[in-house]
Amino acid sequence: MSPDACPACSGSWPATDHRIADCGVVVAYLFEDQFFPGWTVLVLKEHAVELFELSPEERSELIEVVSGVARALTRVFRSIKVNYALLGNQVPHIHWHIIPRTTDDPAPRDPVWMVHHDVRRLTSEAREARIRSIRRELVALGVGVE
Amino acid sequence: MSPDACPACSGSWPATDHRIADCGVVVAYLFEDQFFPGWTVLVLKEHAVELFELSPEERSELIEVVSGVARALTRVFRSIKVNYALLGNQVPHIHWHIIPRTTDDPAPRDPVWMVHHDVRRLTSEAREARIRSIRRELVALGVGVE
Repeated sequence: MSPDACPACSGSWPATDHRIADCGVVVAYLFEDQFFPGWTVLVLKEHAVELFELSPEERSELIEVVSGVARALTRVFRSIKVNYALLGNQVPHIHWHIIPRTTDDPAPRDPVWMVHHDVRRLTSEAREARIRSIRRELVALGVGVE
Repeated sequence: MSPDACPACSGSWPATDHRIADCGVVVAYLFEDQFFPGWTVLVLKEHAVELFELSPEERSELIEVVSGVARALTRVFRSIKVNYALLGNQVPHIHWHIIPRTTDDPAPRDPVWMVHHDVRRLTSEAREARIRSIRRELVALGVGVE
């Protein structure tokens, strides 16, 4: 997929009203399905498909943000484990799914993709409140800025 | 889970006959289910659960190996996309699943966990041949040593 046809590069995905913060090499967005509360997506600002297309410095910056966002989500959602996934099967532009798994998780031993459920879309008020709570922690940790 | 009770620390998982190579901060193993050919697991040598427990230097070394293994698997299996996942829901010791997705993939747009299939265990001869082919590429790229 060329950058011109890439939904992450054209701005058509993720939705701008799900934006949480600018985190340096990536922008953080709340995932549209909040069945797993706090599921966050980190979208690389530049277009790249695989980790090995980046420089070591870019990879290092990227994993620092991934780690920092995981720490922030752990604090906000009191998660017992974080899941980190870079798949890109549908949108081949580097983006990480950072998913806090919590004590009331319906299937704590399974990958989220094995857990059948209806998509849980938040009301705009609830979404904005969740975004604010994550953003506050990202800013406090020095991982992101509004 | 304490390191004493950890299957990755005690050596009970992964099976030693699936070992591919020593890759510095991790050891690479062929995943026991080869339905997706080349699925490799990278197990951190030290015990840690989350990325944010490591130092920036350790994270940087880790993501370099993750990237290098992805490049090696792309070459060996001619993959069109690599999936990278650090979950740890069942074994909470940092380990990465590096999964090359290929042109004859039955569901190229889906995470592997959504693809129902019978576990595909290789014969020992086929497993050893696959391990050798991956190891050769890891050594050629300077990512691993036997």
